[in-house]
Amino acid sequence: MSIQRPSDFGFNHQIPEGDDKPRLVCGDCGWIHYVNPKIVVGAVCSYGDRILLCRRAIEPRRGFWTLPAGFMEERETTEAGARREAMEEAGVTIEIDALLAVYNIARISQVQIMYRATLPGPELAPGPESLEANLFLWDEIPWQDLAFPSVQWALLHWREVQGQHSFATFGNPAGETGAY
Amino acid sequence: MSIQRPSDFGFNHQIPEGDDKPRLVCGDCGWIHYVNPKIVVGAVCSYGDRILLCRRAIEPRRGFWTLPAGFMEERETTEAGARREAMEEAGVTIEIDALLAVYNIARISQVQIMYRATLPGPELAPGPESLEANLFLWDEIPWQDLAFPSVQWALLHWREVQGQHSFATFGNPAGETGAY
Repeated sequence: MSIQRPSDFGFNHQIPEGDDKPRLVCGDCGWIHYVNPKIVVGAVCSYGDRILLCRRAIEPRRGFWTLPAGFMEERETTEAGARREAMEEAGVTIEIDALLAVYNIARISQVQIMYRATLPGPELAPGPESLEANLFLWDEIPWQDLAFPSVQWALLHWREVQGQHSFATFGNPAGETGAY
Repeated sequence: MSIQRPSDFGFNHQIPEGDDKPRLVCGDCGWIHYVNPKIVVGAVCSYGDRILLCRRAIEPRRGFWTLPAGFMEERETTEAGARREAMEEAGVTIEIDALLAVYNIARISQVQIMYRATLPGPELAPGPESLEANLFLWDEIPWQDLAFPSVQWALLHWREVQGQHSFATFGNPAGETGAY
């Protein structure tokens, strides 16, 4: 996902006919750029007592640890997207077993859909978006060097239902509105 | 959400620099139109033993019955979006109590996030997108006139956990890949 600013391309805010909200409209051709919330799909992946984390090779938060996750692509399911991201970022084929959480980060119009998954073995092969990938015991997790608040949320929620076959999917932790 | 075809606006498929997938790029100015999966938010809303359905005043599926649901807007949460849609389509203030289901309709790049909610009273005030709104007893639900397969999925999933305080969020029913 490259970053491009609509204002660099002649877009202006207008309310299109039949709409009730301002949208970005191209001053040249009239194309309306609808901005929809984006879906991030990912997983907390375990191998025995260890959890997979990847150290980001890209901004934002380069050098910090994250769960395998990323923007969902067209015409894939959320599960397929989470599997694709784990393959791209850590070179692993994951087995999804439950929907762990749906988080809202409204400030950046993002919905994060996080699964619980397992790895078939300890072999990792980090891709170009990861500086490294590692399997951490719970007490080894680099809490101070996590890339995003929602990485911590997902890890703590994973821990809360560890060993439970079935559980209610989590939302944002209390007090974390994602709307700050 | 108006329907506009990129091909009517001079967009062509190209692989942007640093990307690995073809995207729609404007032949005039180079703007890249990233198409992301879209999020639909909605709710199965009950008042006592009755369930709220709205009859669609707009295409697709005008005249058929649906749950209050629609495209999530920027900078709102999924819960806020579900509440907004219920207000817009049925004039009701709903109280969300659980995340009922996350459905994937990959064929049209759509993720549907459906909540379970209750109504404070039986008064309905359908908005311009609804021909009418009604509260149906389970045996009165117009199964043959539902607007979309996922409306039926959500109703059946709602029924499956009726009276349960906590339950595992549902995904697509078995065999319904949404990828046909």
